[in-house]
Amino acid sequence: MNFIDIIIKKRNKKTLTTQEINYIVDCIGKTPDYQFSSLLMAICLNGLDKRETADLTKAMLYSGDIIDLSEIPGIKIDKHSTGGVADTTTLVLAPLVSSCGLPVAKMSGRGLGHTGGTLDKLESIPGFNISLTKEQAVKQVNDIGLAIMGQTKSLVPADGYLYKLRDVTGTIDSIPLIAASIMSKKLASGADGIVLDVKCGSGAFMKNIDDARELARTMVDIGKMLGKKVVAVISDMDQPLGNNVGNTLEVIEAIGILKGEVKGELTEVSLILGSEMLVLGGIAENTAKAREMLEENIRNGKGIAKFGQFILAQGGNAAVIDNYSLFKQPLLRKEIYLKKGFVGAFDTEAVGKASAALGAGRISYDMPIDPSAGIIINRRKGEFYDSSEPFAVLFSDSEEKMREGTEIFVSSVKISDKKTEKAVFVPEIIR
Amino acid sequence: MNFIDIIIKKRNKKTLTTQEINYIVDCIGKTPDYQFSSLLMAICLNGLDKRETADLTKAMLYSGDIIDLSEIPGIKIDKHSTGGVADTTTLVLAPLVSSCGLPVAKMSGRGLGHTGGTLDKLESIPGFNISLTKEQAVKQVNDIGLAIMGQTKSLVPADGYLYKLRDVTGTIDSIPLIAASIMSKKLASGADGIVLDVKCGSGAFMKNIDDARELARTMVDIGKMLGKKVVAVISDMDQPLGNNVGNTLEVIEAIGILKGEVKGELTEVSLILGSEMLVLGGIAENTAKAREMLEENIRNGKGIAKFGQFILAQGGNAAVIDNYSLFKQPLLRKEIYLKKGFVGAFDTEAVGKASAALGAGRISYDMPIDPSAGIIINRRKGEFYDSSEPFAVLFSDSEEKMREGTEIFVSSVKISDKKTEKAVFVPEIIR
Repeated sequence: MNFIDIIIKKRNKKTLTTQEINYIVDCIGKTPDYQFSSLLMAICLNGLDKRETADLTKAMLYSGDIIDLSEIPGIKIDKHSTGGVADTTTLVLAPLVSSCGLPVAKMSGRGLGHTGGTLDKLESIPGFNISLTKEQAVKQVNDIGLAIMGQTKSLVPADGYLYKLRDVTGTIDSIPLIAASIMSKKLASGADGIVLDVKCGSGAFMKNIDDARELARTMVDIGKMLGKKVVAVISDMDQPLGNNVGNTLEVIEAIGILKGEVKGELTEVSLILGSEMLVLGGIAENTAKAREMLEENIRNGKGIAKFGQFILAQGGNAAVIDNYSLFKQPLLRKEIYLKKGFVGAFDTEAVGKASAALGAGRISYDMPIDPSAGIIINRRKGEFYDSSEPFAVLFSDSEEKMREGTEIFVSSVKISDKKTEKAVFVPEIIR
Repeated sequence: MNFIDIIIKKRNKKTLTTQEINYIVDCIGKTPDYQFSSLLMAICLNGLDKRETADLTKAMLYSGDIIDLSEIPGIKIDKHSTGGVADTTTLVLAPLVSSCGLPVAKMSGRGLGHTGGTLDKLESIPGFNISLTKEQAVKQVNDIGLAIMGQTKSLVPADGYLYKLRDVTGTIDSIPLIAASIMSKKLASGADGIVLDVKCGSGAFMKNIDDARELARTMVDIGKMLGKKVVAVISDMDQPLGNNVGNTLEVIEAIGILKGEVKGELTEVSLILGSEMLVLGGIAENTAKAREMLEENIRNGKGIAKFGQFILAQGGNAAVIDNYSLFKQPLLRKEIYLKKGFVGAFDTEAVGKASAALGAGRISYDMPIDPSAGIIINRRKGEFYDSSEPFAVLFSDSEEKMREGTEIFVSSVKISDKKTEKAVFVPEIIR
């Protein structure tokens, strides 16, 4: 088999065989980058069909270690979001579904660019340790039903290589490549089933509903072809999902939801995803019953209690739950007033970038972040804003970052004299 | 300007600006190969329009030295063939048009793969020297009207880089990239006008007439946009153009044509190309008058005399013209008999590969070649072959090469019981 022949075959819109796809993944580290990037561009433009995408996922999945979670009894269901702004469903869901009896052994990532990462958020809790060995994680899940840790480098090294190359060769935007990247990592993490949260809108990778549907369908089909239970939920990212953007701020919002104090779209999407997780995990018969269980465990405090137990188990100070002043406090606070009017479209990616500029995010993985930086947004799309109170409050540790973040944030919102539409996005479920 | 943004722009089927195309060529040697190969694949699949192709040609053209032929009086017209088998029009044309008064200062190349190269053919003449300095070449053209030399490395280094990368990344087959590669080299060679011979058929790069027309049209348009006179002739490569394949053998066939002893398609295509050259060069008013001049200089011996003068000027033994035994003689000679029938299709590329296998060609530029190796083919498409005399005669220096060449050659010809069609290909002229 010859790499150049495979490039030419894909360039000529032909379907690659399973053997050819396995050969491609085998060639990582042996074949020059310039041949891979040429092939990746051909795939970007000519696509991969379902079988090819499933084959690629499988070949990538087996390129490194696969986590064995069989020492944890029960069905293990993972959750993955394609990345958004103020999207902290994991912090709500992990303790909530765990409190309903679903074991959660989750690997999470860090934030990059305009999106946040669960690990960064958890590390804003003083003392929280995300470096668990597999043995520690398994023990913790068997003890308290929940563990969240960083992803090891030995998991899907093929994705590490391909993603890095795609990033610098203009070949990120390919639904089959995105699907194979996500699914190979999720499947290597040892879950029996996966609930996918495919974000759609100005703050998401998928800007329009057709692309979001295609990505969701592709990933669900990969799951089917590889014998895993996969459900995808398409949810709105045309405005930040929650009201808080930034690490500490998002933890505080998640605590508020678990305490039953905060309602809104972040809560709603969390309940939808959680319901699917409980059904896939065999905990609830159907999503209606699952939702009742989740709502009950918010009301009766079992969800927030599980979050406290989880923080303690991973070395964090669980007292933050009742005393937000125990989080690192930002040096600077700035109230943003805008002109009176109806809240129109958000450039949600810009909101994420504003938060990153304030210090909450990073452009490359080696940059430090400021856990206290971020934005609280007080109005949502379609609401009337009368200028009497701040539209948003920004937090940062530096005047310069505050200036930069303010500039980006202010340009990310449109206030209109005419009535604007509220978000009417009903999440779609793809099975 | 950012290289990744340019890749993404072309991936998204957008038109690149002149500044962006100049930036791409400027980036050679500074930007990693893997970004270039990704861009090349995007160009392969999404194309370049006329303006982009002309801009790329111009940017490549100015990436190195440009030959200045202004010390040679008159209009300088170059000729370029896209590469074929038994395609030795240059050896016929260069002395013939020169004998009509058109100054010829030509840079030629070597053979690679299944196609031959003028330099290799000339070097089969004992003593012939292709290494002329520009000054020597200019002096020789001013003295005798004709010089042929090797291409210097400083000519279009951008093409050197891009071609090498395209060769190993499955991005050769792109009409705009092929056109820019050819035209940048020809324009850098200092000609005022160019006659292009675009080959079409089983022995050519362009296998079908639509592709050949598109390549011809693209190159003619580049010429127009860059202010040069360019004419393209599309000619048949569905069978070897001449009857002789191999270096010495092709020189002998060219000598035969110049002496008026050999007729056929090679002669015909040479006369068509030569007529266009004389018209572009202002030597003849129209192609009919030009053709008369060329035919007259075959009849009156001026063409062959010019060839002799040219051989002498470049250190060769001009006595070969009348005594073919002065060429290096092959050790082995093998007559090929086939079954009786009508000569059908040739796999012309395979004929070229058979000749290369006999020793006449090479796979990489550092391989030595055997000037005496090759094939004489005694029948053409559509003719009846009665098995009473050899269909072809093969020449080589080694039994092993003879076996390999025989095997490839025999499989390249189809003999049919039913009447087959003669080649009815009428060369198309694109202006």
